[in-house]
Amino acid sequence: MTTIETVAAESDGHGAREAAHGSAGPPGPHGYSKDKDSHLKRLRRIEGQIRGLQRMVEEDVYCIDILTQVSASTKALQSFALQLLQEHLRHCVAHAAEKGGPEIDAKIEEATAAIARLLRT
Amino acid sequence: MTTIETVAAESDGHGAREAAHGSAGPPGPHGYSKDKDSHLKRLRRIEGQIRGLQRMVEEDVYCIDILTQVSASTKALQSFALQLLQEHLRHCVAHAAEKGGPEIDAKIEEATAAIARLLRT
Amino acid sequence: MTTIETVAAESDGHGAREAAHGSAGPPGPHGYSKDKDSHLKRLRRIEGQIRGLQRMVEEDVYCIDILTQVSASTKALQSFALQLLQEHLRHCVAHAAEKGGPEIDAKIEEATAAIARLLRT
Amino acid sequence: MTTIETVAAESDGHGAREAAHGSAGPPGPHGYSKDKDSHLKRLRRIEGQIRGLQRMVEEDVYCIDILTQVSASTKALQSFALQLLQEHLRHCVAHAAEKGGPEIDAKIEEATAAIARLLRT
Repeated sequence: MTTIETVAAESDGHGAREAAHGSAGPPGPHGYSKDKDSHLKRLRRIEGQIRGLQRMVEEDVYCIDILTQVSASTKALQSFALQLLQEHLRHCVAHAAEKGGPEIDAKIEEATAAIARLLRT
Repeated sequence: MTTIETVAAESDGHGAREAAHGSAGPPGPHGYSKDKDSHLKRLRRIEGQIRGLQRMVEEDVYCIDILTQVSASTKALQSFALQLLQEHLRHCVAHAAEKGGPEIDAKIEEATAAIARLLRT
Repeated sequence: MTTIETVAAESDGHGAREAAHGSAGPPGPHGYSKDKDSHLKRLRRIEGQIRGLQRMVEEDVYCIDILTQVSASTKALQSFALQLLQEHLRHCVAHAAEKGGPEIDAKIEEATAAIARLLRT
Repeated sequence: MTTIETVAAESDGHGAREAAHGSAGPPGPHGYSKDKDSHLKRLRRIEGQIRGLQRMVEEDVYCIDILTQVSASTKALQSFALQLLQEHLRHCVAHAAEKGGPEIDAKIEEATAAIARLLRT
């Protein structure tokens, strides 16, 4: 999976930078906070793609080329979702499992429902 | 299909406004030009959703809620793609079919490849 | 698009065989009939994959490996859908466009709704 | 999520029957074994849908109706995948998390890669 590999690579780079700077701030409550910068960079790139689509429509670019760009933006959004999901499973779900108790089942049901929503779009 | 009905409704409203104002400008070369305003409005709404995602990440919103918003944005992008595709089939593909000749096969192959890209994302 | 190329290659082979044997029977009403053999072969392969999934479940194969096989079967189904759609656009939609009249709009709306259903699954 | 609810309902019924018959055999190694009957029933239903598609092609059913049936079969396959994934997260992933150690990261990466494959189809 290229996506996952990219994610891993980015996380590593990020971790290295954090270590160098020594202060990524206190970790947020949901695990993904330490990857905030990487998430925001990704989302800003997607925002740029959406603005690119607006320019294409304004300039009467050929429909098929616009559709190709829509496919790329959708793929980028799903890639972001997968990165977020992986961190969620690692932090929230794995944390609930370590703690034990009934919370883990609710967490896994919630995650599966989120995956179902991603699949159905 | 709600999507398609929405699309039809928006196009009608748009057509009515065009007729009332009497000046939509010359139709662009790819058929979708007369729906430009509706396309741009849609894309600006999606751009707003992506900026909303950035705020959610900045404010440490719970991962699952971010994933739900990603699903909504992906759905909005695919809805836009379907509207564009429908106009493309209506204008470019149907036009090629009316003209006759070999161009129609190339057009249909191109449209099918675009649909395949949308499905694979 | 590999899919589309495969489709084209299969159709060619099929057409050649038909020509050689001189009797594919009268063409069916929906255009895809001349590719019937290729469709049925594809569907029988998918049926075999589904039976393979049953064996995997019976033999307690590792979940992730079953999921990989589900992805392959889903991809094969969508590939079949794309081939069918391409023939539909070529025959039914293009035919309606050549005839002229209002039927073409209904045909294109119907095809777009079918594509929307494929995307939403 | 209807899917997940259905899954829960089916599992309950299954569990009840197991309890009544007193012999589900030893649980298989991957957690999903106790839902084997429900999985096999689902897969046999999907196999029936694929055979239904073959009949539709043989009887020259209208393409759009075949495409609708393909969408239904794809949805059924994805529903099966989600049920399997949920059990996998509950059993294999949660088990690795409880045990502690480095295995959990590998398990989560593997599950995310499987979800990515499902999304990309």
